Amino acid sequence: MTKPTLNPESGFSRLRIDLTYDGTNFSGWGKQPDRRTVQGEVEAALSQIFDRPIDTTVAGRTDAGVHATGQVIHFDAPMKLDEMIYRLNRILTDEIRIINFNEAPYGFHARFSALRRNYIYKILDGNQTLHPVLRTDVAPYYRKLNINLMNEAAETLLGENDFFSFCRFREKATTVRELEKFDFHRNGDGVIVGEVSADAFCYSMVRNLVGAVVRVGEGRFPPSWVREVLEKRERVSESLVFPARGLTLIGVEYPSDSELAARAKITMARRDED
Amino acid sequence: MTKPTLNPESGFSRLRIDLTYDGTNFSGWGKQPDRRTVQGEVEAALSQIFDRPIDTTVAGRTDAGVHATGQVIHFDAPMKLDEMIYRLNRILTDEIRIINFNEAPYGFHARFSALRRNYIYKILDGNQTLHPVLRTDVAPYYRKLNINLMNEAAETLLGENDFFSFCRFREKATTVRELEKFDFHRNGDGVIVGEVSADAFCYSMVRNLVGAVVRVGEGRFPPSWVREVLEKRERVSESLVFPARGLTLIGVEYPSDSELAARAKITMARRDED
Repeated sequence: MTKPTLNPESGFSRLRIDLTYDGTNFSGWGKQPDRRTVQGEVEAALSQIFDRPIDTTVAGRTDAGVHATGQVIHFDAPMKLDEMIYRLNRILTDEIRIINFNEAPYGFHARFSALRRNYIYKILDGNQTLHPVLRTDVAPYYRKLNINLMNEAAETLLGENDFFSFCRFREKATTVRELEKFDFHRNGDGVIVGEVSADAFCYSMVRNLVGAVVRVGEGRFPPSWVREVLEKRERVSESLVFPARGLTLIGVEYPSDSELAARAKITMARRDED
Repeated sequence: MTKPTLNPESGFSRLRIDLTYDGTNFSGWGKQPDRRTVQGEVEAALSQIFDRPIDTTVAGRTDAGVHATGQVIHFDAPMKLDEMIYRLNRILTDEIRIINFNEAPYGFHARFSALRRNYIYKILDGNQTLHPVLRTDVAPYYRKLNINLMNEAAETLLGENDFFSFCRFREKATTVRELEKFDFHRNGDGVIVGEVSADAFCYSMVRNLVGAVVRVGEGRFPPSWVREVLEKRERVSESLVFPARGLTLIGVEYPSDSELAARAKITMARRDED
């Protein structure tokens, strides 16, 4: 991985792209040899337009099958061209859509300037029939879930904690995160929508958090159990990892322009996976 | 086509299935040689389970790309087997889900007993970015649409009318229908949802109706124009046929059990495409 920089080299502009995608048929965001990835497709389109290799930096690395409505990336290039949204969307498959394309303010870094990542997770519980159109966007669960118990459990995880028990193991990376929002409600169609926000997430963290809370919602464990799992600091076999297809990155929040560089310096110092 | 009957032959039961499907990758409901159709897949699964050829009758023949959350079919078979929903769903692709499987009451005919078909049509207007997960369920339209004008226009088409101007031409079939509901609202995501109900629909009728009203919503014609199109009784080139992917059959309504046979006899007398 190249060393992250806050500013493009001279003569280059830092450009920010906001985009949305259906993650169903991709092996996640991150480039992999011989795999179809969102990063691979986006960089190929950018490289074609700029006529040079383009490397992008992403705000939230999504796993295989995870969707995004508010993903953010940046890259450095010699100039900003006209009609970029239109041109990129013409090259890209309709599984990926560019929403915005702008020159980034001074100090902007898609990953390190971010204050917060916001995800939603959708579950249809109790063996209800899922409309097949939604099958790549909602995870079914065969038992009926009690949302009040789930919220009671979720609340005990809020704040700055070591989420090691909910992270796929990765050597040397810190697993301390600040969980700022974690609650569930039912939408008009009876689908359970979980809202999950944190400064950053380690791999599979949202799906592990949701899986643990579902164990409470189905009545298998009391709400206090998820806090016990957190404090145990080890992976718990009684928990679940929920499927990727229920998960969507809905947005990434950044501080005001004047604070972008300072924020990036702080998070870069404790850099890890998000 | 076999002559429709109200009752199964002796020793057979009439069975009713309620089902839902994602129409994206099917050439519509109706069987066609060398095409992947919903009817083809469902009948293959039923024939496998009943170990004999099964012919089904559908309430609303959907076109290629149209979805259903509340489709209804019937067929006649020598017996009702156990765990049919589970067994059928195991055979079928996850693009089709069986919701209910029941013995039908006396006189039930999926097509001719129906009182009403209810559709919804979803449009995202004004060149907003469509989340790619929804690309098979919502039709984009580049101009901003005025819903009040659309509703004003739609209302003029309500009641029993000859919808010839909005039907794909088919010789000898009547194009008189009773349009019982036709109005539009925006959902929480800003998507325009059109609700369209009629006793029955001819081919492409919903997509033609929506296309005409969109011409009003974008300001090209006044609300009175759609009524003029109706009364002209010919296809109008200034109108639009909206794409199939925005359309979903959400339900079919039947009268009470005691009126099923009488209703079927009435509609069978003026039988045509629905």
